[in-house]
Amino acid sequence: MLVQALRDEKMEEFRKQFLKLHPYDRAKFYVEQSPEVRKRMYEYLSPAEMAEIFDHLDIEEDEYKIYLSEMDPMFVAQMLAHMYADNAADVLNELDKNEVANYLTIMDDEAAKDIQGLLHYKEYTAGSIMTTEYIAIHANQTVRSAMQILKREAANAETIYYLYVVNEQRQLVGVLSLRELLTSDDDAMIHDVMNDQVVSVLVDEDQEDVARKMQNYDFLALPVVDANNHLLGIITVDDIVDVISEEATDDYSKLAGVPDVDIQYTPFEAAKKRLPWLIILLFLGMMTANLISRFEDTLQKVAILAVFIPLIAGMSGNTGTQSLAVAVRRLAMGDLEKEGKWRMLAREALTGLLIGLSCGVVITIVVYVWKQQFFLGVLVGLALFATLTVATVAGALIPLAMHKLRIDPAVASGPFITTINDLISILIYFGLATMFMDYLL
Amino acid sequence: MLVQALRDEKMEEFRKQFLKLHPYDRAKFYVEQSPEVRKRMYEYLSPAEMAEIFDHLDIEEDEYKIYLSEMDPMFVAQMLAHMYADNAADVLNELDKNEVANYLTIMDDEAAKDIQGLLHYKEYTAGSIMTTEYIAIHANQTVRSAMQILKREAANAETIYYLYVVNEQRQLVGVLSLRELLTSDDDAMIHDVMNDQVVSVLVDEDQEDVARKMQNYDFLALPVVDANNHLLGIITVDDIVDVISEEATDDYSKLAGVPDVDIQYTPFEAAKKRLPWLIILLFLGMMTANLISRFEDTLQKVAILAVFIPLIAGMSGNTGTQSLAVAVRRLAMGDLEKEGKWRMLAREALTGLLIGLSCGVVITIVVYVWKQQFFLGVLVGLALFATLTVATVAGALIPLAMHKLRIDPAVASGPFITTINDLISILIYFGLATMFMDYLL
Repeated sequence: MLVQALRDEKMEEFRKQFLKLHPYDRAKFYVEQSPEVRKRMYEYLSPAEMAEIFDHLDIEEDEYKIYLSEMDPMFVAQMLAHMYADNAADVLNELDKNEVANYLTIMDDEAAKDIQGLLHYKEYTAGSIMTTEYIAIHANQTVRSAMQILKREAANAETIYYLYVVNEQRQLVGVLSLRELLTSDDDAMIHDVMNDQVVSVLVDEDQEDVARKMQNYDFLALPVVDANNHLLGIITVDDIVDVISEEATDDYSKLAGVPDVDIQYTPFEAAKKRLPWLIILLFLGMMTANLISRFEDTLQKVAILAVFIPLIAGMSGNTGTQSLAVAVRRLAMGDLEKEGKWRMLAREALTGLLIGLSCGVVITIVVYVWKQQFFLGVLVGLALFATLTVATVAGALIPLAMHKLRIDPAVASGPFITTINDLISILIYFGLATMFMDYLL
Repeated sequence: MLVQALRDEKMEEFRKQFLKLHPYDRAKFYVEQSPEVRKRMYEYLSPAEMAEIFDHLDIEEDEYKIYLSEMDPMFVAQMLAHMYADNAADVLNELDKNEVANYLTIMDDEAAKDIQGLLHYKEYTAGSIMTTEYIAIHANQTVRSAMQILKREAANAETIYYLYVVNEQRQLVGVLSLRELLTSDDDAMIHDVMNDQVVSVLVDEDQEDVARKMQNYDFLALPVVDANNHLLGIITVDDIVDVISEEATDDYSKLAGVPDVDIQYTPFEAAKKRLPWLIILLFLGMMTANLISRFEDTLQKVAILAVFIPLIAGMSGNTGTQSLAVAVRRLAMGDLEKEGKWRMLAREALTGLLIGLSCGVVITIVVYVWKQQFFLGVLVGLALFATLTVATVAGALIPLAMHKLRIDPAVASGPFITTINDLISILIYFGLATMFMDYLL
């Protein structure tokens, strides 16, 4: 129906129907259209109306370029000026320096200044997700006059549900929710009703820490300050929701050893993205193969040893993945600072010992019953006990070591730890087998 | 300092300091205290003040019982009545039926009715996370009178930032944000300024779908309705933030094959929780061992075959984990409905083919250079090519099959797929080796 109105060049009808939709639905409609239809949309909608669409666009970062190239540069500049500054900065971060400079030059000065201020914050910090469209007031006025400021600025602020109170130096001294404002007496002074225990975040704080704070305190927005407590911007809860789900997807992808589970690649792209990791693992696997080939004599004498290779290697991979996941999450939650790395390792070691003991006993019995060979059962049981203990510790140790070396511990994926543990377990298994060779023959 | 005030029985000083804190910090302080100190807190704080703490408590669900047992039953009932109904229902869901009935009986009727209404919604549905403390108004009044209702109800509502407009049958007909209310003319009628395209969720909708909707539309709250569009409650963004991080942790834990990565268990508990999975995998591993033992003849003749077992089994596990993670996420995102399962499988099959081809060629060359055996190289390369292709498809197929059988596909963990793929890869590898035995000797 909307498309029909566009095709028939019925501008009024299109606008009437289209602007009734929630901006997210408008954005969904927009990206589903062909470039021709989109071009008509730029004619029928104002830059401010397109800005609302772009504020809700849910596309890959490199697609912005394509959409912007369909519009007149003047239109782009006006649209960016009408977007929330944080979103406009996100769009501009995808363009070449020259283009950015162009757009900022034709934009009106105030909007350009707001956006420019946000462009140079490092990715994944509070600064990179904050916006400058907040409402700041002074403490020395009545609730009534604050209410007037709020009504005046409501149209431009990203949230009107918190008022931030600043002093003459623009330092953050208090906060007041709209709820508190509405339920306060009109003649009360702001400094009497405001809350002076403000929870804020530093501009260079990691966005994950900001997310955790927001989640704990149930805020709808958090103020961002510099080291001298000057108010720089705010972070709203909708951006935090995005951060939480991005970080979760990221951890999940890394555990599985894939670049990004949520992007739909073509088979060629997917293979290209997954292969580098696999080739590295292939060479690690060659090391395991090389290790076994050093035990070829042992194998030649007792071929049945080969039967238990995948079981022992596989189980050590399984338990390693478990303790890896626990350690990575514990590091991400900042629990390491609370507990200390030695305690964490000691706990995993004891867990591994218990797991190894249980599985070792089970397999000894099973092998004895199955193959009627007592010493083989004991060997496999002993090997499983030792490998599971070591593998559990390795699963915790590797992310801890990476953390120490300031590498993101989430890079140690399940496949990686599994392959490392293959190597360790083969060494233990064949080592033990060679030692107790006499009993096996 | 706060503890000191409690010890010295300085009630006024404690209250003055304590009530200045944000409720989350009060809750943190509360759980860190000994039972004795906590008991003094129940004396010094009112049920309403304790309710604020409980609304922000971040503890294991089974710990509620312990805290409640320290309080007088009347105090508990009053506290629950002061809590947001959704949170109170969460607490009551952890208690025995008798206890619940007791508390509800001594509670005042209105609060008891609110909470009772929430107790019977199924876990993980919109109903289980909604609250009934919203503001509903009728369309046939002015902005001014709506504002008065809002100010009157502000103290009890969980959010005052949306007003929901209902008709005589309490059906949801519109929504109005406080921002729109504040910027509308005082004499305008609600039905003229309200938005009648309301985005709502059904009471039995999955909480993950609710979360996705909230994330897409950037709402601070979503109304919950029944099949006849009667307004039942609202879900606020802070609960959605919790849902998103819980679901993410859940997916992550399942991929790693651990019960819950975020709970700090003692080594005994951890071993007990991880073992059931490992024992199942151990028996699956025995099947692999059994499979190899059927090829003992082949192995006896060409012992060098054993050298490549962990490499081939391991690589098939790695690629299987990758495609598993992609498939699980795709299912969770609802992409399957869009794409269809055959297309998804075809895409993974082609990806697997490309990965298998690349790794197969690499390993053929490496083995040839290393061992100077052409046929062995070709065999290992061919086996790797075939296993990687099959393993990639298996990684996608297993969660799809589980989805079809209405089992949560996330249960197919990395360790599970790895072990299944061990079995498949051994079958392929030794099958090929036996077939081409003549060339190897």
